[in-house]
Amino acid sequence: MPAVHIQSHVYLIGAGPGDPDLLTVKALRLIETADVVVYDRLVSQPILNLVSPGAELIDVGKAPDHHPFPQPNINSLLVSLSHRFSKIVRLKGGDPYVFGRGSEEAEVLRDAGVAYTVVPGITSAQGIASTTGVPLTHRGLATGVRLVTGHCRAGHDLDLDWDGLADPDTTLVVYMGRGHAAEIARRLISGGLSADMPVMLVVDGTRPSEERHFTTLAGLGATAATIDKRRPTLMVIGRVVELADELAIPLEAELGRVGHG
Amino acid sequence: MPAVHIQSHVYLIGAGPGDPDLLTVKALRLIETADVVVYDRLVSQPILNLVSPGAELIDVGKAPDHHPFPQPNINSLLVSLSHRFSKIVRLKGGDPYVFGRGSEEAEVLRDAGVAYTVVPGITSAQGIASTTGVPLTHRGLATGVRLVTGHCRAGHDLDLDWDGLADPDTTLVVYMGRGHAAEIARRLISGGLSADMPVMLVVDGTRPSEERHFTTLAGLGATAATIDKRRPTLMVIGRVVELADELAIPLEAELGRVGHG
Repeated sequence: MPAVHIQSHVYLIGAGPGDPDLLTVKALRLIETADVVVYDRLVSQPILNLVSPGAELIDVGKAPDHHPFPQPNINSLLVSLSHRFSKIVRLKGGDPYVFGRGSEEAEVLRDAGVAYTVVPGITSAQGIASTTGVPLTHRGLATGVRLVTGHCRAGHDLDLDWDGLADPDTTLVVYMGRGHAAEIARRLISGGLSADMPVMLVVDGTRPSEERHFTTLAGLGATAATIDKRRPTLMVIGRVVELADELAIPLEAELGRVGHG
Repeated sequence: MPAVHIQSHVYLIGAGPGDPDLLTVKALRLIETADVVVYDRLVSQPILNLVSPGAELIDVGKAPDHHPFPQPNINSLLVSLSHRFSKIVRLKGGDPYVFGRGSEEAEVLRDAGVAYTVVPGITSAQGIASTTGVPLTHRGLATGVRLVTGHCRAGHDLDLDWDGLADPDTTLVVYMGRGHAAEIARRLISGGLSADMPVMLVVDGTRPSEERHFTTLAGLGATAATIDKRRPTLMVIGRVVELADELAIPLEAELGRVGHG
């Protein structure tokens, strides 16, 4: 096994939901000074534009139903890059430790004796809460929030604790669930949630192209079917959806919006 | 009703878990250029040091069991500040829309016709995941994460869906639960979780004074009782706690840590 570069360090960084202004200060500094950046499909172009022109960019993006770069290959790539570069940035959409598989990469790096640091990122649920006005918790409407993934391997069923998920006092946010929306709605209703429970689907959250679709559990399957499967979509299920701000602006600069009232 | 200052704008900003490096780029810029900053007890001193020397600082912090500044007064304060200042920053620990009561302040501002913007922040669960090496999700250990608050009004019982919370495949993070730790453990065990389920208590997460206590549900009450109630404490309950990195460093600069292996 070749010796690890004495100075090499891998940073597993959350790039947040897309808006570069939502990077952490630490993430921005590391992205700007990296020697090499390994990035996913969900990392936005404005964030990739922050990488130094002299740095190497490696795309390991996965489109839905298309896995050109399997996880074990990404793991090996990070270890092999540590033999050639000092500052290696592994950039993931959202937060590396919330459905980001960052902990699998961390385990491989640790076992290989490669130094690493994890830098959290704003996860999509937080990003769209700020742009849509739908809070994740709210007194009297939601005592907590639950984040689950609605994605599963091809040919496998969604294996979730549906009765536990069907809690009207918890905001449920489903990542990567567009393709299973009808099944999710059906299971939640049979678990005890009302068919009238409000649902918001947010496409391209926090980006200039952000779109919102408002429906209920009863209408979720039909609404989700109208959304292009290549666009990242988040589902928010719960009474907090009633608080959506009709005047909210998808991507706002310092001017922001003026409330109605 | 007095006229709203034509240029005034309130920013409801998440300050993250304490480390100023974990502020978003947007939050940093707004904090540095605010005319007035209204802040909570959980906002750290290094972050307050970023406020311009010419800006007014207003402390509305709440210590446990001590509420010098009730929420309705904070709401009124924000509206009245909009008559006197252009750029008003309301700074909250963590994320304003995750147990931050930010949506209550947003409603009041909207009803008063005051312009506002919400800026998300890294919530404590994410911050401590990055410092301790305990991911919030991990294949085979946790298919999702649930954030709840263990705080309730004095004299009231914790009103949570305990059977739904007792899901061994979900990481459960309890905010503000130190005082009810024994009851939380008892309810989760009677809901079906194993008494051996690993628990991590993190005190002062992401700060130089960060401390971690490892226990199980059976030992949770006794361990929590040893922690000073004035220090912010987060509980992580779930199998992901087994992944805690013994070599993780509470507050690391660019050098970070070297993995073992």
